[in-house]
Amino acid sequence: MSGQNQSSRYLLRQSNLMAALELAGLDALALNPGSTLTYLTGLHFHLMERPTVILFAPHADPVIILPELEVGKISSLDYPIRSFAFGDDPSTWAAVFKTASQAAGIDGRRVGVEPRALRFLELRILEGAAPQAHFVSAEATLSSLRVHKDESEIASMRQAVDIAQKALQATLPAIRVGASERELASELTLQLLQNGSDTEFPFRPIIAGGPNSANPHSVPTDRKLQQGDLLIIDWGAAFDGYISDLTRTFAIGKIDPELERIYHVVAEANAAGRSAARPGVPAGQVDAAARAVIEKAGYGKFFIHRTGHGIGMEGHEEPYIYGENALLLEPGMTFTVEPGIYLPGRGGVRIEDNVAITASGAESLSDMSRQFLVLDR
Amino acid sequence: MSGQNQSSRYLLRQSNLMAALELAGLDALALNPGSTLTYLTGLHFHLMERPTVILFAPHADPVIILPELEVGKISSLDYPIRSFAFGDDPSTWAAVFKTASQAAGIDGRRVGVEPRALRFLELRILEGAAPQAHFVSAEATLSSLRVHKDESEIASMRQAVDIAQKALQATLPAIRVGASERELASELTLQLLQNGSDTEFPFRPIIAGGPNSANPHSVPTDRKLQQGDLLIIDWGAAFDGYISDLTRTFAIGKIDPELERIYHVVAEANAAGRSAARPGVPAGQVDAAARAVIEKAGYGKFFIHRTGHGIGMEGHEEPYIYGENALLLEPGMTFTVEPGIYLPGRGGVRIEDNVAITASGAESLSDMSRQFLVLDR
Repeated sequence: MSGQNQSSRYLLRQSNLMAALELAGLDALALNPGSTLTYLTGLHFHLMERPTVILFAPHADPVIILPELEVGKISSLDYPIRSFAFGDDPSTWAAVFKTASQAAGIDGRRVGVEPRALRFLELRILEGAAPQAHFVSAEATLSSLRVHKDESEIASMRQAVDIAQKALQATLPAIRVGASERELASELTLQLLQNGSDTEFPFRPIIAGGPNSANPHSVPTDRKLQQGDLLIIDWGAAFDGYISDLTRTFAIGKIDPELERIYHVVAEANAAGRSAARPGVPAGQVDAAARAVIEKAGYGKFFIHRTGHGIGMEGHEEPYIYGENALLLEPGMTFTVEPGIYLPGRGGVRIEDNVAITASGAESLSDMSRQFLVLDR
Repeated sequence: MSGQNQSSRYLLRQSNLMAALELAGLDALALNPGSTLTYLTGLHFHLMERPTVILFAPHADPVIILPELEVGKISSLDYPIRSFAFGDDPSTWAAVFKTASQAAGIDGRRVGVEPRALRFLELRILEGAAPQAHFVSAEATLSSLRVHKDESEIASMRQAVDIAQKALQATLPAIRVGASERELASELTLQLLQNGSDTEFPFRPIIAGGPNSANPHSVPTDRKLQQGDLLIIDWGAAFDGYISDLTRTFAIGKIDPELERIYHVVAEANAAGRSAARPGVPAGQVDAAARAVIEKAGYGKFFIHRTGHGIGMEGHEEPYIYGENALLLEPGMTFTVEPGIYLPGRGGVRIEDNVAITASGAESLSDMSRQFLVLDR
C-alpha cells in the first residue's frame, strides 16, 4: 500500500473516531501504546516504563506525548500531529504532560480511555495534568470502530490462518511418544516463522498433553507425551499485525473410549457453533448452539469457558461469544469458535476455528481437518 | 528445583514482601498478571481482558480473584491461598471482587499497586469493591525486592545471554547486501529458539539498517541492506523467565569515515560505563562515565537516551542508568550498559552489554566481540 493510501486510511479512521466519540458523549480520547493506537495512527510503540500517550479531541490535530528517543517515528507521518517529548528523568514528565494536556484542551472534559490498555502510570499522570477531567471507559466506542473488519483486514487474517495451518502441518511429524510439550512448542514456533508469521506472535502456543490438556490455559512443560494422551495444541500466527488463533486436539495412540467420545462431542459442538453464526443473530446464540451439544451429551459442567472471542489485531476483543452477549453479529465481524470439554486429571479436548461473518452467513477462515486423528508412533 | 524448594522460595519472597510493605506504610498489595505476580507466587497468567488480581495483606493468606477456567493453576500450589472465581459474564465480576476484597480486608486501607502493570480495568473494579481504599504506587517497594538477584536468578540470566550470543553468531552469515531487516529478524528469531530460548521472548529483535539505525526503537522493515550501511541489532533471549538484552552494530562494506569514528566512540563509552559499575556508586555515575566519552568526542547531543536499565524477569526495571539516578549500586543488581550515537538520516551505533554488580566490581555477562566488524558480502 502506498504512503498516500496509508495516510487516507488513518485519516478516515480518525474521522470515524471523532463521530463515534461525539455519539458517545465523549470530549476526547487518551490512548497509550497498543493496537488501538496503531489502528488509528499506523504508529508502533513498545509499551514501556515511560508513559507515551496520544490525545484525540474533535476539531484539533492529535497530540502525542512521547519519549525524546521515539520522536523519529513521527517525523515521517503525512498527517498532522502535535508532539511533546520528554527526557529520561521521570521528575520532568509531569510538566510535559501538563503542557500537552492544555494544548489538547482535555481538562474538565470527559476523556475516554481503554480499560484494558491504560495503566495506573498513565492514568495518574493524566489526572495530575488535567485534574478536572473525567476519565471513563471508551471500550464500547472503540470496539464499535474496530469490530467491523474491512476486506484488507480479513485478507491479513486469512494469511495468518494459512501460515498457522501450514506450521502445524509441518510440526505433526515431531508429535510422538517421548516428545515434551516444550520441544513441540519450540518446533511449532520455528515453523510459524518459517511459514511467514510476523515475529511478534499473538500468544505463546499452548501444547498440553495428558492431564495437562484438562487445563484450558496450560503452559508448555517438560512432560513427555505418553500413549493414551489427549494432546491439545492452541496456536496462532500474525500477519501484518493481524492474528489467527486456532486449536486442534489429537490422540496419542489408543485412548480411553470416553476421551474419544468427548472428542466427537466437541467436534459436533464446534460445527454447531459455526453453523449458528450469521448476520443478525446475537453473539450469545453461537455460544448457546455449541453449548447445547455438549450439555445434551452430559458434559455441560466440563465446558468451563465461553465459546469464543473476537480476533483481529488482538487475540481478545469483541465480539465475545458467551451466552448473555446480546450483541448482534454483523458482516465483517471475526471471532473464534472454540468449545471444549475438560475432564480434570484425565484430559481435555478443544477444537477452535476462526470465522468471519459474511453478508449471508459465516465463513470459516480455517479449514484444517477436524477429524479424530490418532498419532501412533 | 524440587517442589519443596519452589514452595520455600515463594513463601520466603512473600514474607519479605510483608516486611517491605510494613516499612513502606502500606497495608496491602494488589497485583494483576505480570512478572511480580510470578515472582511472588510462581504462577503464570496471561494478561487478558478479564481482571485477574491477587491481594496480599499481612497476617493473612493471599487472596486471588480469577476466571473459573484458570482455577486449575492454583490447585497444585503447596502454600495456602484463598481463591474467588468468576465466570464469563462481566456483569457478575463486581460482586466477586466485593466478596474477595472483604475477605482480604482492603477497604479503607492503603493498597499498593504496580503503576506499569495495573490497568484502568482492575483499578476501577477494585475501587468499586473497596470504595474507601487508597490505591498508591508500590513501585519502589517492589523494586527493592526484585532488584537484588540471587545466584539462581543470575545463572538464568547468564544462560539467556549465552543463548542470545550463540543465536546472533549463527545469524551473521545471513547478513549481506540485499537481505531485508525483516528477513534477518526472522532468521535471528529462529536461531534464538534453536539455541534454547524460552518461546516467550523478552522483546522483538530490532534490526535497523542505514538511516533506520538512527532511530533507537526502529521496527524491522522490508528495507534491504546496502553497501555503506550501519546495521544495529538489538536482541535478547529468555531462559526460565529471565532475559538478556544485547546490542551489536556492524558495518556493511565500506562506510563513511565519520560513521566508523562514532563506532569507536561508542565502544569506548560502553567500556567506560562498564568500568564505572561497582558497589556503592550511584547508578547515575555509570551514565556519566559513558556520556563523558561521547560528549568529549563532540557527539553529546546525538546520545539521545539514558545509558541503560535494569534487567531480570523484565526488560525494563530498576536500576535505571540515567544521570540523576542517585540509587547506589549493590551486589546482585543487573542492568544494561548501552550508549549510542544517532546521526539523523545517516545512521547510528549502539553497543549494549548486560552486567551484574559483584562484591567488588561488575561482571559483564555478555562477552561477544565489540570490535569494529565490517561484513563485506
